[in-house]
Amino acid sequence: MATIKDVAKDAGVSLGTVSKVINGIHVSDEYRQRVEASIKKLHYQLNPNAHGLKAQQTNDILVIVPTLQNALFPPMIDTIEKELNKRGKRMLICISRNDSSKIDSYISMAANSRVDGIFGVTYSKIVDPERLNIPMVAFDRHFGGKIPCISCDNEAGGYLAAKTLYEKGCRNILCFWAGTDYESEPTKRIAGFNRFCSEKGVNHNVLSFMDYNMADTGFMYPSKSYKKLIHSYLTPSDGDQKFAYDGIFASSDHLAHLICDELRKMGLSVPKDVQVIGFDGMPDFITGEPIVSSIRQPIDKIAKTGIEMLLKMIKGQEVSSVTDLPVTFVDGGTTL
Amino acid sequence: MATIKDVAKDAGVSLGTVSKVINGIHVSDEYRQRVEASIKKLHYQLNPNAHGLKAQQTNDILVIVPTLQNALFPPMIDTIEKELNKRGKRMLICISRNDSSKIDSYISMAANSRVDGIFGVTYSKIVDPERLNIPMVAFDRHFGGKIPCISCDNEAGGYLAAKTLYEKGCRNILCFWAGTDYESEPTKRIAGFNRFCSEKGVNHNVLSFMDYNMADTGFMYPSKSYKKLIHSYLTPSDGDQKFAYDGIFASSDHLAHLICDELRKMGLSVPKDVQVIGFDGMPDFITGEPIVSSIRQPIDKIAKTGIEMLLKMIKGQEVSSVTDLPVTFVDGGTTL
Repeated sequence: MATIKDVAKDAGVSLGTVSKVINGIHVSDEYRQRVEASIKKLHYQLNPNAHGLKAQQTNDILVIVPTLQNALFPPMIDTIEKELNKRGKRMLICISRNDSSKIDSYISMAANSRVDGIFGVTYSKIVDPERLNIPMVAFDRHFGGKIPCISCDNEAGGYLAAKTLYEKGCRNILCFWAGTDYESEPTKRIAGFNRFCSEKGVNHNVLSFMDYNMADTGFMYPSKSYKKLIHSYLTPSDGDQKFAYDGIFASSDHLAHLICDELRKMGLSVPKDVQVIGFDGMPDFITGEPIVSSIRQPIDKIAKTGIEMLLKMIKGQEVSSVTDLPVTFVDGGTTL
Repeated sequence: MATIKDVAKDAGVSLGTVSKVINGIHVSDEYRQRVEASIKKLHYQLNPNAHGLKAQQTNDILVIVPTLQNALFPPMIDTIEKELNKRGKRMLICISRNDSSKIDSYISMAANSRVDGIFGVTYSKIVDPERLNIPMVAFDRHFGGKIPCISCDNEAGGYLAAKTLYEKGCRNILCFWAGTDYESEPTKRIAGFNRFCSEKGVNHNVLSFMDYNMADTGFMYPSKSYKKLIHSYLTPSDGDQKFAYDGIFASSDHLAHLICDELRKMGLSVPKDVQVIGFDGMPDFITGEPIVSSIRQPIDKIAKTGIEMLLKMIKGQEVSSVTDLPVTFVDGGTTL
């Protein structure tokens, strides 16, 4: 039976080139065609399960995301795939829909050495760091143990949102927060928001509801109950009362968009009467424009840095959490 | 060394249950915990590359898509992942960005038995059916050979678009087509459009440009040159001339959206002066509403049927192309 060495010799290329072709890594068309011709000619058969034996590596990385139907994750995964493909790694995806038992099942699979590492975006209480025997990097989450966190500088993001609203003339600012009920990176946005407002002595308030977490809806289209909640929180209890805020910082673009809708229904103009800033700053797929004014996460850099961290860990190197990737303000028409 | 049988015995479960836990398939929390405890206790080590040897199957399916940053693909992949996960299969993703050599590299990898099958969405001239020695199902493409095609009923979609515009009062209808330059499933939309217009004797025209294919931009945000092209095609050559059409059928929602923008810039009201219908009908991530009035593809059914076909082929069963999945009209505010 022909070996990989026979193929390399016949094709007149290095072993590495044959390995690249077999593993789906890009080589020149000419080289690829030569290797494929030799594989065909020599009836070379790769044992599909044997080629990873030597290194005890699968070259597969598992990416866990709650959904693809949210503007934040498709560009993140696009970059992750590009980074992995460059290095000859393959990307497996678990779309969790925040189903803890599904995530648990995938982690069992991973823990049984069926992938080399995990890049995880999860908003449920699931991972037991003790249980995980392969490297994992978490987006926006501090699991403890040996799982580093990758995220933007969320504290600076909250600060920048408050500062931007203030500089654009807002003097009564609301932070409207729909988050998770555990301490996570994103909650630092509230701290940053509060820090700016305290420094400047700006009139501010934080309205936080954790029970209507977007994560529960899988970050999908707003449910009717979610819209109702926004309505009940924003409507002044006395019908004739003036709306108390001229600036709102929302915990996501999705939420900011719903808030703008509600304000307009209340007869208020956005941004003339009330300015609104969201968080994430991803462009809309269709228009290419930001959906609302927003604090933009450097999603490419997050993905790239996260994958670099994960690959270092797979090589046995130590890494630290990186939570200071810089954010920027983007004007999406909901600020003056 | 402990075997899988030892684990099953120790945990008091069947071999199948242990196998499920190892392969990431859902079992009850209690069973999973028992199996994991036994694996830990017995120091059972799965050979990561050996467990697929018997069946010569990897249980991995490769999905090729041009991008995730287009409203059509995230829901498609969501469904594919759900269908695969239910059956204990894992999903690998190649995001091609319409890079032929990248797709070729992935197909080489796949052809070397590193996946069991491929679900492919590709808009480049790439696949040589002779070269592929594993099952593949193609979305919207007829590759010939043993690669069946899965798609909605595109001809009926074009017919429905023209019929809807006509029934809503349009009498001069334009089909504005930006497509690929090879014969593909979607081009049947033009045939359906023409069929209705001929049957009813409706004044109609087809404007087709193939060189500015959306596929070239990776289905991403509209480039400036693309917008310019739409501008030059829609602007009457004589500035004072009235716009000739009261209805437009565009080959995608993305294109329809750009056309609406351009018409509004020309001082025309959509839908009062000109009604516009796109194709795909995916809801916007943020609003949950369709972006434009559209012919909706049954994307869940396409994904589900395509995966069923692929899994049948992997089992050695014969399947035929399925291109008659029904479309529906959705009102997105760009029709009366």
